[in-house]
Amino acid sequence: MNGKLANRLSDPSLQSPAPTKSLADCTVAIAGLGLMGGSLGLALRGKAACVVGIARRAETVEQALAIGAIDAGASDLSAAGNADLIVLATPVSVILRQIDQIGVLAGQGALRDGVVLTDMGSTKAAICDAMARLPASVQPVGAHPMCGKETSGLDVAEGTLYRDAPFILCPLPRTEPWATSLVAELAETVGAYPLPLDPQHHDRLTAAISHAPYLASVAVFAAAADLASGDPVAWQLAASGFRSTTRLAGSDPVMMADILHSNRAAVLEHIDRLREQLDLMASLVAGDDSAALQAELARIQTQRQAFLDQYGS
Amino acid sequence: MNGKLANRLSDPSLQSPAPTKSLADCTVAIAGLGLMGGSLGLALRGKAACVVGIARRAETVEQALAIGAIDAGASDLSAAGNADLIVLATPVSVILRQIDQIGVLAGQGALRDGVVLTDMGSTKAAICDAMARLPASVQPVGAHPMCGKETSGLDVAEGTLYRDAPFILCPLPRTEPWATSLVAELAETVGAYPLPLDPQHHDRLTAAISHAPYLASVAVFAAAADLASGDPVAWQLAASGFRSTTRLAGSDPVMMADILHSNRAAVLEHIDRLREQLDLMASLVAGDDSAALQAELARIQTQRQAFLDQYGS
Repeated sequence: MNGKLANRLSDPSLQSPAPTKSLADCTVAIAGLGLMGGSLGLALRGKAACVVGIARRAETVEQALAIGAIDAGASDLSAAGNADLIVLATPVSVILRQIDQIGVLAGQGALRDGVVLTDMGSTKAAICDAMARLPASVQPVGAHPMCGKETSGLDVAEGTLYRDAPFILCPLPRTEPWATSLVAELAETVGAYPLPLDPQHHDRLTAAISHAPYLASVAVFAAAADLASGDPVAWQLAASGFRSTTRLAGSDPVMMADILHSNRAAVLEHIDRLREQLDLMASLVAGDDSAALQAELARIQTQRQAFLDQYGS
Repeated sequence: MNGKLANRLSDPSLQSPAPTKSLADCTVAIAGLGLMGGSLGLALRGKAACVVGIARRAETVEQALAIGAIDAGASDLSAAGNADLIVLATPVSVILRQIDQIGVLAGQGALRDGVVLTDMGSTKAAICDAMARLPASVQPVGAHPMCGKETSGLDVAEGTLYRDAPFILCPLPRTEPWATSLVAELAETVGAYPLPLDPQHHDRLTAAISHAPYLASVAVFAAAADLASGDPVAWQLAASGFRSTTRLAGSDPVMMADILHSNRAAVLEHIDRLREQLDLMASLVAGDDSAALQAELARIQTQRQAFLDQYGS
């Protein structure tokens, strides 16, 4: 318990329950046992008092039990009744629905008073807005670990998924610091580093480095497929560079459609930025100034190398 | 020597010299000792009578000799005087210049009569047009092995680079079949498979699966960099998907500017196709029909998976 926290706890105006537990003493409920939820369960093994996995399909729960990702399983959110920490690791549209369900359960007294609710959704503004409507007995902390794979599902889950990943935290203005600290402890426990960020800020940045690049990747594949539909030898010529550029187009379409619609404004704004850059490139290709084209390509190559040097390749 | 070839040789109207050698008996001159030329030299080790490397910089020649990529070295194209096969493995604009130099040397009688000239340039129409102007004593065969790396230079050359790669061959209407066969033998010797293609056809296809994807990759990076210039935390959030999508943006800008300008029309035509796809995606993101967005993303994901299943991932 840090000094700041002790100060808060001695404040008689403090309404929410005191933090009585560290993660090691917590029952953690994970709703959604795909790549993210399954990997979280594996990473938490032996580091939380109990991990309860919640998934709609009984086979998923059985598989999660079999690989040791969870200690107990259930098919319904009401199984989170004993949880100190609930993690929603479902697609964004499901998270939004589950936040409402959590609100109903809390209103019925079916959850622990002071339960901490977090999520792993890829957009944060819509989710934090929904969290703001929760009863005061729930401590909400929006979160987004910046890792993943282009494949999804429990089959590809691994306990090392979160290592060295930035784990964005979006506590709400009403969130108690101890609740944010518990989610930060969760992040650190699985090897990630907590990074607090405003939800709108998070959404603008992920539009630029994840959502719009995904759409570009889809468009690159679709444009080539358009040509190849009448000329399949095109595929024979596609080398590793084409596979890299279109790797993100292999992402789960249900998950991505969810993300794109829930981050619509920021994605569209960044798509405009992307179009401008593509137009600039096209005009340099159309022109005769080879030195200007070369200089612009070199400028961007150098910037990218600096990014790789600083942030890892 | 195949039957067709024997027939041609018995034809008294045949003007060009007979093919007297297989690759094992040939002196091969490689102009340009970067990734492509250096890897070719390494792959040809012990499989040609002699490999002469030609590079402007003496240090490059020395390095190529030291790693065993060439048997002898020189700084000037005139060193190809004894070659049975000349391979231009320089950037496209240099290849175009060197074809003219080859023409001058051939006109001076400074090259073997019936020397076969091929290249490894990434565009083929401009190069084959230039080859068409060569004297009859030169047998031209445009070529393009579809492999590479986003890094360049002799340092990253490797003898296995060409393995299993399609090796596009663009013989000219005037090219003797035995000359095309010699270049096909070269391709097979280094582990690639020869794939004859019309030069314009080659350029349309590579615009779609290589040149336009490169520009998209550059635009994705540049648009993110535009945002990150005022908000560098963006880079901290960039995960492996962003690195994949922008991998091609790390390609050598001098080489790429050359390729883009020499394949301008096909690249611009495909950029239009790419813009259309991006516009379609943006309109689906802007709309409220989540099922329609999901269906389109799923359709493209499925197509891409089929491509990977058929052509390797």
